[in-house]
Amino acid sequence: MTASSAPVRQSSVRAHNLALVLQTVANSPDPISRASVAGATGLTRATVSALVDDLIAGSLLAEVEPAPRNGAGRPAAGLRPAPDGPAGLGLELNVDYRAACVVDLAGTVRHRLVEPGDQRPADAAAALAGLAALGRRARELAEADGLTVAGAALAVPGLVAADGVVRIAPNLGWQDVAVGDLLDGLPVIVDNEANLAALSELDAGELPPSFVYVSGEIGIGAGIVLDGTLFRGVRGWSGEIGHIPIDPDGPACRCGSRGCLEQYAGQEAMLRAAGVPTVTDLAGADLTVAGRALGTAIATVVNLLDVDTVVLGGIYAPLLPGLHEAISAEIERRVLTADWSPVTLRASTLGPDAAMRGAAGAVIRTVLDDPAGWLARSRAAG
Amino acid sequence: MTASSAPVRQSSVRAHNLALVLQTVANSPDPISRASVAGATGLTRATVSALVDDLIAGSLLAEVEPAPRNGAGRPAAGLRPAPDGPAGLGLELNVDYRAACVVDLAGTVRHRLVEPGDQRPADAAAALAGLAALGRRARELAEADGLTVAGAALAVPGLVAADGVVRIAPNLGWQDVAVGDLLDGLPVIVDNEANLAALSELDAGELPPSFVYVSGEIGIGAGIVLDGTLFRGVRGWSGEIGHIPIDPDGPACRCGSRGCLEQYAGQEAMLRAAGVPTVTDLAGADLTVAGRALGTAIATVVNLLDVDTVVLGGIYAPLLPGLHEAISAEIERRVLTADWSPVTLRASTLGPDAAMRGAAGAVIRTVLDDPAGWLARSRAAG
Repeated sequence: MTASSAPVRQSSVRAHNLALVLQTVANSPDPISRASVAGATGLTRATVSALVDDLIAGSLLAEVEPAPRNGAGRPAAGLRPAPDGPAGLGLELNVDYRAACVVDLAGTVRHRLVEPGDQRPADAAAALAGLAALGRRARELAEADGLTVAGAALAVPGLVAADGVVRIAPNLGWQDVAVGDLLDGLPVIVDNEANLAALSELDAGELPPSFVYVSGEIGIGAGIVLDGTLFRGVRGWSGEIGHIPIDPDGPACRCGSRGCLEQYAGQEAMLRAAGVPTVTDLAGADLTVAGRALGTAIATVVNLLDVDTVVLGGIYAPLLPGLHEAISAEIERRVLTADWSPVTLRASTLGPDAAMRGAAGAVIRTVLDDPAGWLARSRAAG
Repeated sequence: MTASSAPVRQSSVRAHNLALVLQTVANSPDPISRASVAGATGLTRATVSALVDDLIAGSLLAEVEPAPRNGAGRPAAGLRPAPDGPAGLGLELNVDYRAACVVDLAGTVRHRLVEPGDQRPADAAAALAGLAALGRRARELAEADGLTVAGAALAVPGLVAADGVVRIAPNLGWQDVAVGDLLDGLPVIVDNEANLAALSELDAGELPPSFVYVSGEIGIGAGIVLDGTLFRGVRGWSGEIGHIPIDPDGPACRCGSRGCLEQYAGQEAMLRAAGVPTVTDLAGADLTVAGRALGTAIATVVNLLDVDTVVLGGIYAPLLPGLHEAISAEIERRVLTADWSPVTLRASTLGPDAAMRGAAGAVIRTVLDDPAGWLARSRAAG
């Protein structure tokens, strides 16, 4: 229908079909036969077999023997993502912990390292050095399993520019921090923690295509998913729900303003209000003030974006039973459409791990999107 | 690259190319020659000429004689949208006025009728009957010019469902109002006024691809444009900025909540605070309270959506000089990225006409998008 069209080269057809086959296998909950891959993709069986052979040789797919079964005929061998292929290294640096995880091509978390501890006393360079040590340990564990770490992604509680520089992370006290070469030349993607957590919830596949993920930590962020795609905003800085004003004359916030949501529903504000030392103690506390503030901010998000599903993550996931009533009351009061179109509140299924899982998933996604590139780089590396 | 592709039929190729040629002429600021249309579209001159002949015969394009020019060679005749072809009828029903306008294919406003008057004492049926009378007058004026009204669109200050029913318009006191057959069988699109106003600002072509349009009337709405497309939300109910809470214990709002933006920066709130009877009198008034509330709400929108341009429309357009300082101060205080990435505030160039212009434009857009359909329907109508 268009007046002109770029020629399609044979090499790009192969690259496209490699990705199609790999993704078909990765998205299948059970091992899947070559014939089923052909059926699902519309490719011929011969083409599928040639591509599968390349993907197996490159340690992206593995063939598993079928379980013995009663009845006639030998069942076909099944394909699944290789358990010893590329893996993603997910890193997170948050205000009171640092963490790393290794996720393989099938989405299985193979290693998970979490170190609690306030990151604020250290300057950015020292905090990053501590994280790098943790990341190297995780990488060694991955390599001991026979996995190849394809890359890393780092989740931070702040605004990240297109060049990977953390422009501002108010609760870490960071401004214009370049992450630099964290892991001996391994490429590192840097992204906002709520964005990565929202992506991991999207990948988990149990949510509608549009939702808002609200991440409760010491700061509060949001990842906005619209029609199955993360909405990043014009410069990548969307989702700063933590600084929605709840009361214009409220307490001072680290951002320089007053009465922001974080001052009512952030982790430290909740601990202070409840007079308890740890997040675990909050389970029995009265969370009405935090819930009302969260509900007010969520009502604003729903009035502006018209999403009908809100996922509460981070520390909010286990606390949702104590927050639910106050949040719902504010939504009913403030959302114009609430009477005839209820808003669903859900606890994150991944809890505090969502951001680092999303970080590892972002690396896995680069391999699934371009297996031809991965195979070429693997061959070049020897 | 995909495994299968639907066959492209000859009739759909012609429909596509008719639209391509018509839009190329409509988007050209000056009359444009057939040769230039061929150059811009990549179609052959012969194809362009055949399509242009059809579009001229169907009163969608007109050929104009070029102005005499010095120098050698006879300049080619130019094409422009037909001044006596289809037109869009834009309607608006707002709290304190009703309005209609006729816009031709070139985007020129041919007629404009505005009737001030509170629409709230009348019930919805009576208000719609009054609007229908105004719409019929505008249609007669259009037909007296030789224009054919292709359809109508109605802008309302409320939430409109996909079936055109106004679910709620708090400031009109409407709930579940079906607009029905307003204009003797003429198709009528119903949409939110801020959405239509934002579309008309987008069509005007002087804004970046992402911006938020804030419409100040008795109610306050927003139209959110992201990457050149109106963002409607999951069910079409995005942009309800008027009910962002400014002070949780503030004055009661018609929506049932308290302290909403409308109670500080809506038209009636501003008149009450200034102690003046008309919007014109607000030009000299102290608008700090309204400006701070608007700035607080706009800061929330920017923190969530990361847009860098905000257009102030409706009554805000002429009042922007008196509002600017207070709005900017709140943005600087509350937007995390404001220090290194300023937010531009602009007054709407279309002022209070933006919504009805956008409504007429929505009708014009249906003709520009599918001229083949328009030509077929015109022939069938005789």
